[in-house]
Amino acid sequence: MKARVKAIYRHLKQPVDAIVLSNSTDPHIDMSFFYATGLTDGLFEGCTAWLFPDGRCEIVTSALEGDAAKKSGLPLHVFRNRDERLSAMKGLARGIRRIGINASELTQKAYAELKKLAPKARFVDVSDAVMRARLVKDESEVELIRTACGIASRSFEQILPFIAPGRTESEVAAELVYTMQKNGATGPAFRTIVGAGPNSAEPHYTAGPREIRRGDLIVIDFGALYKMYHSDVTRTVVVGGATAEQREMYETVRRAQDAAMEKLRPGVKGKSVDAAARRLIDATKYKGRFIHGLGHSLGLATHDGGGLNSVSDIVLKPGMVFTNEPGVYVSGFGGVRIEDDVLVTKGEPEVLSTASRDLVTVG
Amino acid sequence: MKARVKAIYRHLKQPVDAIVLSNSTDPHIDMSFFYATGLTDGLFEGCTAWLFPDGRCEIVTSALEGDAAKKSGLPLHVFRNRDERLSAMKGLARGIRRIGINASELTQKAYAELKKLAPKARFVDVSDAVMRARLVKDESEVELIRTACGIASRSFEQILPFIAPGRTESEVAAELVYTMQKNGATGPAFRTIVGAGPNSAEPHYTAGPREIRRGDLIVIDFGALYKMYHSDVTRTVVVGGATAEQREMYETVRRAQDAAMEKLRPGVKGKSVDAAARRLIDATKYKGRFIHGLGHSLGLATHDGGGLNSVSDIVLKPGMVFTNEPGVYVSGFGGVRIEDDVLVTKGEPEVLSTASRDLVTVG
Repeated sequence: MKARVKAIYRHLKQPVDAIVLSNSTDPHIDMSFFYATGLTDGLFEGCTAWLFPDGRCEIVTSALEGDAAKKSGLPLHVFRNRDERLSAMKGLARGIRRIGINASELTQKAYAELKKLAPKARFVDVSDAVMRARLVKDESEVELIRTACGIASRSFEQILPFIAPGRTESEVAAELVYTMQKNGATGPAFRTIVGAGPNSAEPHYTAGPREIRRGDLIVIDFGALYKMYHSDVTRTVVVGGATAEQREMYETVRRAQDAAMEKLRPGVKGKSVDAAARRLIDATKYKGRFIHGLGHSLGLATHDGGGLNSVSDIVLKPGMVFTNEPGVYVSGFGGVRIEDDVLVTKGEPEVLSTASRDLVTVG
Repeated sequence: MKARVKAIYRHLKQPVDAIVLSNSTDPHIDMSFFYATGLTDGLFEGCTAWLFPDGRCEIVTSALEGDAAKKSGLPLHVFRNRDERLSAMKGLARGIRRIGINASELTQKAYAELKKLAPKARFVDVSDAVMRARLVKDESEVELIRTACGIASRSFEQILPFIAPGRTESEVAAELVYTMQKNGATGPAFRTIVGAGPNSAEPHYTAGPREIRRGDLIVIDFGALYKMYHSDVTRTVVVGGATAEQREMYETVRRAQDAAMEKLRPGVKGKSVDAAARRLIDATKYKGRFIHGLGHSLGLATHDGGGLNSVSDIVLKPGMVFTNEPGVYVSGFGGVRIEDDVLVTKGEPEVLSTASRDLVTVG
């Protein structure tokens, strides 16, 4: 993983002598720990990765995860208790004057502990460099995301016959997660959203006891976790045939997604991609109803840092993976969102999520 | 939720004028936000809860989750963009001299932002008070945990016939999660562990492609999430009849769990509970093979802060909920762990996880 460590250092705005990526208690785990070490399994609570300018990486790991840590092939400092942990970290921090920290994933408590261990060091927030390095995926990361996207897409198509009047939103969510796991997912990437009827108009709804009815639009937002990598896909289906209004909403969103897809090329700014979709929607009667950003970087987290939205200055590069997910939401009536995971390449963007984007009728 | 806010203030070691609980991007969400607001749904990325000494609580929430936030019945400050968010927070921070922060769940980045908003304020880490308040559950919290425990226990008993030679660990994990969701779980509380044969000897293993074989010990560690509350249960089963050695391991762990259960009473220190189980195991040929703490507080997180281990000075009180999970692990042979979720009461501890603790033979 030398290349990943070096990528972080390349993005630094001021030099540091070491970077420490520090996990607290779940859920306060810094996924960058896994980026830098290449580990794709385990939890590593209380563990740290120490990154040096020459690309070296050393891990301070609990004995409980010693075997899992070995898979990294990196030098390990194994601790069995708090004292051994602090002493290993103190050893690594010795003589280091400038220590980089990932402030966006480091808890204030872990930071206070670090400052105590290295009272003379100066701490520098390197979270921007970490985020920028993580934005561009290497081949093995793309492969894991591709697998996660494939599992999600295939599983969605398999459960379509299950989505029918009388089923609850929660049942559909459970069936989809189960199918993803049977298809090889490590787990769901996040809480599955199944919003039927009026619930489809709430972008942050999850899933509840509401039964599916004829005439519903259903927004289904789901993703597979594969090893530690995420997919994030949304499909909107209609129960028992679409009305003209539903079809118009769907086609508007689909054209907005296509417009954004055209822009997903190297050199384009994140906000230009968002604008392409937003302009299209705002030129229709759904003006103002696309109430969230167009998408976000995808990887070790579902929201992997950096996005496609109206203020994003990120310049697209090959290897970046973004969701492209425009939507329109009409309170009380319903919503439509179509979301795909897209790899930026030198040429055409590659859509990694393969489920059909046509409006599907179920039930 | 006034009582919860007041409970946090009661545990403070130095006075503050306000406490802010701040969510960053998922997974860096401070579950204390949900404790203080009483909300049991939603994600609330970038949102904050402001707690005052008189028990008042106000929420700064994104418009996307405005409807969800309303369910709290608390005063809301709704923002549609970053500027509105900062301005709402600035308004709340105005004139406050001492601001409490939950350093164990606050990211360093969010902290830096707060310091900028209130440059004259002094910030005080109140994480210990938050943890101590959260340790003692109120009735509605106990009810949610009880439901989560019931779903997990019932689901485990339902899938026992599924656990048979030829099934993979991952298949068993998927079946169990699916069954929990069908039984009403919001989702799994954490990544389900199914470790069969030699994998059962690794406490932090998750689940993989290994097929179950006759003679295996299988450690199954699982939990249901219900609304936002967690259960965490482990059962160890044996495939096709236990050997004398397997039975001895199991009975040793079970007796250790019973010994700890006796100690789960008000006024006892966490380390005494751990010691009761450890002493029992260390007096057998499995000495030294109980390689983790006995348990942890359970609630809005699986590891809810505070535990039962050899250094825990927590004094047990009615309303606390802990896992009681001794185990022994013999590398290459297998492991046994039995884990139950226990409510400390004025009298006998109440075991909330109801699945049978007898050694079950499957396959």
